[in-house]
Amino acid sequence: MNVSSLRCLRCHGEFDWDGEAYLCPRCPEGASVGDAGILDVQYDYKAAREQLFANGGLASERRDVFRYLPVLPLEQPAELLPAGGTPLFGVRTFAQQYGLAAVLLKDETREPTRALKDRATTIATARARKLGHTDIYCASAGNAAISMAAFAANTGMRAHAFVPSDASEVRLGWLTRLGADVRRSSGDYDQAFAEAESMRERGWYSRNCAFNPVLVEGKKTVAYEIVEQLGWRAPDLLICPVGDACTLSAAGKGFRELAAMGITETLPRLVGVQAAAVSPVVSSFRGVTLAPRPDEQAEAETAAASIKVKRPRNLRRLLSELEQSAGVMIAVGDGAIRRAQQQLAGEAGVIAEFTSAAALAGLERLAEHESLAGRTAVLLITGGRPDD
Amino acid sequence: MNVSSLRCLRCHGEFDWDGEAYLCPRCPEGASVGDAGILDVQYDYKAAREQLFANGGLASERRDVFRYLPVLPLEQPAELLPAGGTPLFGVRTFAQQYGLAAVLLKDETREPTRALKDRATTIATARARKLGHTDIYCASAGNAAISMAAFAANTGMRAHAFVPSDASEVRLGWLTRLGADVRRSSGDYDQAFAEAESMRERGWYSRNCAFNPVLVEGKKTVAYEIVEQLGWRAPDLLICPVGDACTLSAAGKGFRELAAMGITETLPRLVGVQAAAVSPVVSSFRGVTLAPRPDEQAEAETAAASIKVKRPRNLRRLLSELEQSAGVMIAVGDGAIRRAQQQLAGEAGVIAEFTSAAALAGLERLAEHESLAGRTAVLLITGGRPDD
Repeated sequence: MNVSSLRCLRCHGEFDWDGEAYLCPRCPEGASVGDAGILDVQYDYKAAREQLFANGGLASERRDVFRYLPVLPLEQPAELLPAGGTPLFGVRTFAQQYGLAAVLLKDETREPTRALKDRATTIATARARKLGHTDIYCASAGNAAISMAAFAANTGMRAHAFVPSDASEVRLGWLTRLGADVRRSSGDYDQAFAEAESMRERGWYSRNCAFNPVLVEGKKTVAYEIVEQLGWRAPDLLICPVGDACTLSAAGKGFRELAAMGITETLPRLVGVQAAAVSPVVSSFRGVTLAPRPDEQAEAETAAASIKVKRPRNLRRLLSELEQSAGVMIAVGDGAIRRAQQQLAGEAGVIAEFTSAAALAGLERLAEHESLAGRTAVLLITGGRPDD
Repeated sequence: MNVSSLRCLRCHGEFDWDGEAYLCPRCPEGASVGDAGILDVQYDYKAAREQLFANGGLASERRDVFRYLPVLPLEQPAELLPAGGTPLFGVRTFAQQYGLAAVLLKDETREPTRALKDRATTIATARARKLGHTDIYCASAGNAAISMAAFAANTGMRAHAFVPSDASEVRLGWLTRLGADVRRSSGDYDQAFAEAESMRERGWYSRNCAFNPVLVEGKKTVAYEIVEQLGWRAPDLLICPVGDACTLSAAGKGFRELAAMGITETLPRLVGVQAAAVSPVVSSFRGVTLAPRPDEQAEAETAAASIKVKRPRNLRRLLSELEQSAGVMIAVGDGAIRRAQQQLAGEAGVIAEFTSAAALAGLERLAEHESLAGRTAVLLITGGRPDD
């Protein structure tokens, strides 16, 4: 394993990893977990690069996330539901309509439980098993919890899902069928998150991506796959819906690692998209931000359940990634997301969940703001549970 | 392209392929398409084997169905929604419970539109485009039509979906969002099939797997993938739900081709599973058949919408494949399917549609009937649209 240390993204302190640290030992732990810093896994990248490649090509013949084992916090691959290895493909009409050289969809609806979350769950499940945990928990509007519950079912662990009061009945039904212990909060996602993290003292393993640093390591594999699928080249733009800010941060980390190892020469601009009704990252970012078009109706609520997060736990991480990539944060209305969801189906033949369609709505907004001529954009289609 | 001829499975006549034959020119065309024979694509397998392999390994680096291009009726790969390349993985608790060496799931819920149907649609769409068709049609309870509509949307073709009167509203909603022309029959699947095939005279391209012989060619790639994933070895048992009888027939053809080319040494026993309420293949097969356990309640209806077919159009093909593989046909009650669906979720973490769970219910029934000790069984999890 090439993990060299953990770094706190708040105090920038660096320390050895004991295998299960969640909080920075130097930062004061306050009322919320965010106050104790967010940890970032560091590697010996020289060793990692050497292990990644052999005889001019990638050493691993695996097709799941463990293809990139040398940059993961695990000694060896785990035999779980195989996550990752999803296709990347172009949609010509999108490129024409928005004036780019290419618009590519990274189709994460083809993960084991239909969501990119599975990349993170793989690592969490493998780590939890290695450490001898029998119980795993997370806060989630549905996708992360369903992912956790499926992997737990597959490995005989107990899954505890903390869901907001307005969680979809269909998603709750699947959590139950997957054997999860479902704990419905009386409040929103933020409250469910707090309730979940209060369980830490029971010795359960946290699958909260914004808290347990190994989750981001799983999510970052999507950047490695994209770069490999493009012939070891980074795209110009990486566009992704933003809720707790983990996924886009993780992709940003992956792209930075690839550049640091000398595998790619450029970094993509990270483009984060939030629903206008709940867009705290757009408000916090000091770089380029775009509001919905003036003629779009302002909504008080959003149907984008998977990114309806008022207090993004990985805000610090994402703001740093956005700065390093000259990134953009975009707020789009639900009307624009709905049109994008329809466009994904009617033009690309892709059945995406409402939240995921925000990536395409973001591309539309960005293309109105500036010319994207000659660029290649990759849209993360993060989930494929469209009707709940 | 290595296609050498078409063979009629009814009169056994062989003739040249003009690229679009649906019916046997020698068999009398009667009231139903089945009366005009079912055609089977033949190849120059010596040439195909040479092209499949190079330098000791598979020549193609593609991960979709076009990986096996030398045994497909196309000159070159088509750039469509990437179908195929799905994982095969074991579930230890199933092997223990039913007394096998291994029970492996071939997870076709990870296809572009969540169903194995996409393998067939890929070939149909590529052929239709090559022939200059702008319209494509099929009869379907949902999965095949959604698959067709998605590929049509992705390529700018018009899709015409003929659905039974009791088609799920959720599936109809997705057909509409994918831009399909939805034609709801006043009758069942069999009537929708007849209505669909009456459109042939308009010059539309048929995506009916039981009619257009190229569809089976796409479906058979699942056998090639399984064999490759097992290290170029066939499993002992291949278990699959049976409706129109196309999918299991196609897998059987793939396994036979692999053996004929000398790539594998054995054929798997094909095990077809039908819902007891609609089980015409179980009734027609003269080999080993199993009825539901005597204590299972007999149902007059079935919720297994995707295999609710009273007149299986590929019956002749499947009966032949079953005979050649010493196969088994099994009828299971909806109660057993429901338990199997729950078991797939709760033990394997796999979210399968009701119909697909019939494969596991079939394994349970077969294991009651005979010892499967030492065997490796592959279950085709054909679809992942669980709630409609």
